[in-house]
Amino acid sequence: PPVAPVSLQPVYDGPLPTPPQRAFQPGSTPAHLTHRFMMWNSVGIVRCYNDEPENSVDIEFHDSAVHHSMHLSNALGHKMADISQEAVLLACPGSDQLASKLLCLHFSSWDTCKEWVVDLPSEEDVQALCLGRGFVAVATSALLLRLFSIGGLQREVFSLSGSVVCVCAHGDQLCVVYHRGRGFDGDQALGVQLRSLGPRHRLILDQPLPLSPNSHLSWMGFSAEGSLCSVDSLGVVRMLNRSLGNSWTPVCNTRDTSKSKSDHYWVIAVHENPPQVRCIPCKGSRFPPTLPRPAVAVLPFKIPLCQTSTEKGQMEEQFWRSSLLQNHFGFLSSSGFEIDEEAESRGLKEQQELLMKMFALSCKLQREFRCVELAHMMSQNAVTLAIKYASRSGRMGLAQRLSTIALEKAQEEEEQEEEEEQ
Amino acid sequence: PPVAPVSLQPVYDGPLPTPPQRAFQPGSTPAHLTHRFMMWNSVGIVRCYNDEPENSVDIEFHDSAVHHSMHLSNALGHKMADISQEAVLLACPGSDQLASKLLCLHFSSWDTCKEWVVDLPSEEDVQALCLGRGFVAVATSALLLRLFSIGGLQREVFSLSGSVVCVCAHGDQLCVVYHRGRGFDGDQALGVQLRSLGPRHRLILDQPLPLSPNSHLSWMGFSAEGSLCSVDSLGVVRMLNRSLGNSWTPVCNTRDTSKSKSDHYWVIAVHENPPQVRCIPCKGSRFPPTLPRPAVAVLPFKIPLCQTSTEKGQMEEQFWRSSLLQNHFGFLSSSGFEIDEEAESRGLKEQQELLMKMFALSCKLQREFRCVELAHMMSQNAVTLAIKYASRSGRMGLAQRLSTIALEKAQEEEEQEEEEEQ
Amino acid sequence: PPVAPVSLQPVYDGPLPTPPQRAFQPGSTPAHLTHRFMMWNSVGIVRCYNDEPENSVDIEFHDSAVHHSMHLSNALGHKMADISQEAVLLACPGSDQLASKLLCLHFSSWDTCKEWVVDLPSEEDVQALCLGRGFVAVATSALLLRLFSIGGLQREVFSLSGSVVCVCAHGDQLCVVYHRGRGFDGDQALGVQLRSLGPRHRLILDQPLPLSPNSHLSWMGFSAEGSLCSVDSLGVVRMLNRSLGNSWTPVCNTRDTSKSKSDHYWVIAVHENPPQVRCIPCKGSRFPPTLPRPAVAVLPFKIPLCQTSTEKGQMEEQFWRSSLLQNHFGFLSSSGFEIDEEAESRGLKEQQELLMKMFALSCKLQREFRCVELAHMMSQNAVTLAIKYASRSGRMGLAQRLSTIALEKAQEEEEQEEEEEQ
Repeated sequence: PPVAPVSLQPVYDGPLPTPPQRAFQPGSTPAHLTHRFMMWNSVGIVRCYNDEPENSVDIEFHDSAVHHSMHLSNALGHKMADISQEAVLLACPGSDQLASKLLCLHFSSWDTCKEWVVDLPSEEDVQALCLGRGFVAVATSALLLRLFSIGGLQREVFSLSGSVVCVCAHGDQLCVVYHRGRGFDGDQALGVQLRSLGPRHRLILDQPLPLSPNSHLSWMGFSAEGSLCSVDSLGVVRMLNRSLGNSWTPVCNTRDTSKSKSDHYWVIAVHENPPQVRCIPCKGSRFPPTLPRPAVAVLPFKIPLCQTSTEKGQMEEQFWRSSLLQNHFGFLSSSGFEIDEEAESRGLKEQQELLMKMFALSCKLQREFRCVELAHMMSQNAVTLAIKYASRSGRMGLAQRLSTIALEKAQEEEEQEEEEEQ
Repeated sequence: PPVAPVSLQPVYDGPLPTPPQRAFQPGSTPAHLTHRFMMWNSVGIVRCYNDEPENSVDIEFHDSAVHHSMHLSNALGHKMADISQEAVLLACPGSDQLASKLLCLHFSSWDTCKEWVVDLPSEEDVQALCLGRGFVAVATSALLLRLFSIGGLQREVFSLSGSVVCVCAHGDQLCVVYHRGRGFDGDQALGVQLRSLGPRHRLILDQPLPLSPNSHLSWMGFSAEGSLCSVDSLGVVRMLNRSLGNSWTPVCNTRDTSKSKSDHYWVIAVHENPPQVRCIPCKGSRFPPTLPRPAVAVLPFKIPLCQTSTEKGQMEEQFWRSSLLQNHFGFLSSSGFEIDEEAESRGLKEQQELLMKMFALSCKLQREFRCVELAHMMSQNAVTLAIKYASRSGRMGLAQRLSTIALEKAQEEEEQEEEEEQ
Repeated sequence: PPVAPVSLQPVYDGPLPTPPQRAFQPGSTPAHLTHRFMMWNSVGIVRCYNDEPENSVDIEFHDSAVHHSMHLSNALGHKMADISQEAVLLACPGSDQLASKLLCLHFSSWDTCKEWVVDLPSEEDVQALCLGRGFVAVATSALLLRLFSIGGLQREVFSLSGSVVCVCAHGDQLCVVYHRGRGFDGDQALGVQLRSLGPRHRLILDQPLPLSPNSHLSWMGFSAEGSLCSVDSLGVVRMLNRSLGNSWTPVCNTRDTSKSKSDHYWVIAVHENPPQVRCIPCKGSRFPPTLPRPAVAVLPFKIPLCQTSTEKGQMEEQFWRSSLLQNHFGFLSSSGFEIDEEAESRGLKEQQELLMKMFALSCKLQREFRCVELAHMMSQNAVTLAIKYASRSGRMGLAQRLSTIALEKAQEEEEQEEEEEQ
C-alpha cells in the first residue's frame, strides 16, 4: 500500500520575536491579583481589593500631613493609579457600553469639588498614566499621549511612535517608554523619551532604553532628586548620566544581595542624597503581597567597576559613584530648586580626597604616570597637596611634572573667572 | 503495513513581519492603472495614459499663469512625476539595456533649452523624487539620496539608512521617509528625516514616524505654509508640531466623514491659513479615477480631544487647534517669508478669547482652580479682563489670586523687553 | 490500511531575520586562523601565531622610532588587539576558571613598569576594544562600555543599548557600533554612536549606520585626519560628512577595481590629505594571509555621481570630492590641532577653479541658468572672473545677472566681517 507522501517543508527554527511586554504602572503589582498594590511610591500607597462582590481602593499617604487616608468604592473597576503631593489619579479600561475613564482626586485644590472625570473617546483605552507637578499624562491604545492640567483642563495631544510601556514624571519632566520595535530571543526593543513641559515644551532625549540581555523593564521612575532611573527584570538599576552625554550607568544590582535565585527586590524609589535604592524584598516571588505589610529595605549604590575587591578598585568605584551623584545638584539648581549646598560641597570634598588617596596608592605602587593622570582630575588645591606629598616621598621628578599641571590649572581658573566676569 | 513516520516539527505561529510598503509618490495613483495620476498637488496635475500603443503624459497647472498645459509622449515609460512653480520632473526605471532616467522640464528657466536629462548609473533605479525650491531630490535603489540643482547640476549625495518610502520638499526643506526596520503584524517601521538645505545643510530631525496601528503611510507632504504632514491608510492626518518638541499631533481623521468603510478620502494638500485638508472623496475605492474629473472636497481640522460634544471639550479643541496653527507664522517669518500678519494677530486674539470663554465657563462651574490655570495661559491684558469678570461675579478670592498672576506677567514682560533692548 | 494523517500546518516562508554579525576588531583577520592579523592599522601590525604547543604575538611598528618590535608569548590566549602611538592593548576571553583579561603595554609611560592588567568581573567577556589618545575603551558581553585611562585607572562605565559590533577611536573621539535591532533577509540593523571624551563628555551622534543592501560591516575607523569611515562587505567606503548634517557619503567602491568577484580589498586605513584608501588586495579571498607579507595598495576617492564619463560629470565629481575633503581642516583646527594650511588653501583654490571650469562649460552649452547657479556657489573673486568671461563671450545678459550676485556677495562678506569684529 502506498505510503502517505509527506512533503518536507522548510520549518523555521531561527531567532524568534519576543512577545512585547505589556504596559504597566511602575510601582504596581499584577492586575490579576485579588489584593494588589495599584501604586507604591515615595508619596504613598494605593491598594486595590477586588473581593466579590465588593471592589474597593485604599489610599494611604506616608506623610499624613499631605492628606489623610481614603477608602473608595471601586464600582468602575479602576485598574491603574498614581499618587502625588497634589492628587490621586485613577483609570479604568472601557467596555462595550462604557468609555475608558480617568478620575482625578485633586485634593490640593481649594475648590469645594476637587474631583474631575474624563471619558476617553470610544474604543480608546488608558494604558498608562502619571502625575507630574501641575499636570496629568495619559498614554492610550490609540497611540496618543494626552496631557491634562491637574485641574482638569485638556492640554496638548501627540502621537506615540509605538505602543506605551509606561510613563512617569517629576516636576516638569515627563518620561514615556514605548516599544520602538520588536526584540528577539527574549530581548525587548524599548525606546525612552524624556520631555520637559516647562515654559517651553522640549524633547530632551529619544533613544533606545538599555536593558540586560533577556530581560524586560520592571520599574521606571525619577530619583527623588529628579534623575531618570530604570530597573530591569534581572535586577539592574540604571541612572541616566547627564554628564556622560545622557548615557545610562548601572548603579545597583539587586541580585547581588539576593540569597536565592527566586528572591527578588521590588523597587519603589531611588534617592541620591543620601544614595538609596528603596525596595521590598520578596521571598520566592517577584512581587510583594499586600498583607502582611511589607517592610522596606535599602540597598546601596554600587557601580560595577572591575576588581572592586582591591583597594584601587574600591576607591575608583567610590570616586565615580560620588561623581555621578554630584550631577543632580547642578540640575536641581539650574531648574530653580533649592539644593543641599552642604551635601554638594561634602561631595566635592569627598571626590578630591579620593583622588588624593588614589594618588598616594599609585605613588606606593611606583605608578607615577597614574599619579599625573590623577593630578589632571584634581582641583588646583589638591594638586598643591599632591606636590607636597611627592616632594616628601622624594619623588622630585613627579613633583616637577605636577608643578606644571598646577600652573596650567591656575591659568585655566583665571581664564574662567575672567569669562564669568564679562 | 507501516504508517509513514510524520515528524512533529515545530511550526512557527508567532507574530509575522509585515511586508514593507513600496516606495510611492504622494499624490499619485497606482502605477499598474492604465490611466492614472502621476501627481496631483497644489501646483497642478500630471496624468499618465498608458494606452497601447500610445503612452503619454498630460500636464496641467491649476493656475495657467504659471504655465500652459503640456502633452508629452511617454516613449521612455516615465512612472514618477512631481510638479512645482519652477519645473516638472519625470523619471523612469531602468531596463537591461537602458539606464533609469531623470527628466526635468525646467520651464521657469530663461534659457532656450529648458530640458535636462540625467542617466543613473547602471543597476540603480529612481524610486522616489521631488522638487524643492531650486533643487531636485531623488532617492534610488542604491540607498542613495541624490541632489541636483534645478538647472541640472549634480550636488551632494548621501546614503540612506533604509530603503526609501517617499520624499517631499517645501522651500529649503527636504523630507525623506524610509524603512528604519521591519514592522510586525500589519505595522510598518518607518523613519522620517527632515533636512534644511539652506545656506547650511542641517538635519532637523530623524525619528520614527508615528502611524495608526495596522496602517501604512498613504500621503506625506508639507502644508502650503511649510509644516510637515502625514496621512496614514486609516485616514489620520498628523502635523509636525514645532512647539511640542517636534512631536506629531493628529489634526484630522478623514474616516470621521466617510459614510461607508469602503469610502476613502485621497489627500492632495493641507493648508493652515485657512485650515483645510484638501482631498478627493473616493466612493468604494482608495484612489480616484482620472475620469470623470474628480471633485475636490475640503475637510476641517479637528484635534482628537476627549468629550468634544461638551462645551468645555469644544473650546479646548478650538484653543489647541488655534495654537497649533499659530506655529507656522513664526517659522515662516524666521525663514524670511512674508506672513499674513492680520491672520497672525487674528489667531492670537482668538486664543485669548477662547481662554476667556473657558474662564467664564469654569467660573460658572465653580472650578476656580481651573480659572487660575487658565489665567496662567493668558496674556497680561486678558488676565486684567479676567480679574474684572471675577470681581463682578463676587469672587473676591479668585480676583485676588489673579492679581498676583497679573503682577507676575507684568514683571515677566518687563524683563523680556529689557532683554530685547540689550 | 489507513493512510497516516498529515496535518497541513502553516509553514512560515516570509522574510527571515539575518543572524547578527559578530563583534570584530576592524583591521583583524578571523580568530579561527592559525596565523592571523590581530590588528593592522596606520601605527603597526599585531600578528598572532597559534602553533601548537606555542602561541605567540608579534608586534611591529611601521615607524620603528615609535617603538621597536616585540615578541610575546600568548599563554593567556589573547584574541583581540589594538596598537597606537602610546600603547598596545590585548584581551582574552574568560573561561570557567579564569576571568576575561585586558593587558595594556603602555610603552610611552616613563614608569619602570609599563604594563597593567585588569580582570573583568566573572561571566563578563571583552568583545571589542580600542585605544584613543590617553584612554582605553572596552565593550563587554554585559552590554557595558568600560573606559580606562591609558595608565590603567578605571574611568566611566555606561550601558550599551545593543550588543557591540566594534569600537574605534581617534584623539578624543570614540565610536561604538552596535546592533540596534534585527535586520531581515541579509541586512544588518546597526547603530553608530560617536562621542567626544574631551573636557566634557558629549554624545555627538547616535544613528542607524547605512550599509549596502545585503551586506555587513567589514571595517570601521577614523581617517588619519579624524573623520569617521565605514567599509561594508560589498566594498563601499563611506565617510561621515560633517557639512551634510552628519550623513554618510560614499567615497570609494573597492569593487570597481576588482577584476574578479572573488577578489577583495581589505581596508587598513583612510587618509584625506592626500586622499587615499589604503588596503590590501586579496586574490580569491576576503582576508590576507600573514605570509607572504601582503603589499599595500592605494585606491583613490570617487564619489558615485551620475555620468562621470562626461566632462560635466567628471568636474562635478571632482568638485564635491574636493568639498568633502575640505571639511576636516575646520574640524582639526577647531579641535586644537595644527593643520596643513597650504593644503587647505590649495583645496579652496581647486574648488573655485572647478566652479570656473564648469561655468565655462555651461556657457559653451548655452546653459546660462546653470552659470548663475554656479556663480552662487563661487567666492566673490571667482564671480568677478566669471563676469569677465561672460562679457568677453558677449553674454551681456548673463554678465548683468552675475553683477547682481557679485554685489550680494560683497555685502554678505562685509556683514560677516562686521560680525567678526564685534
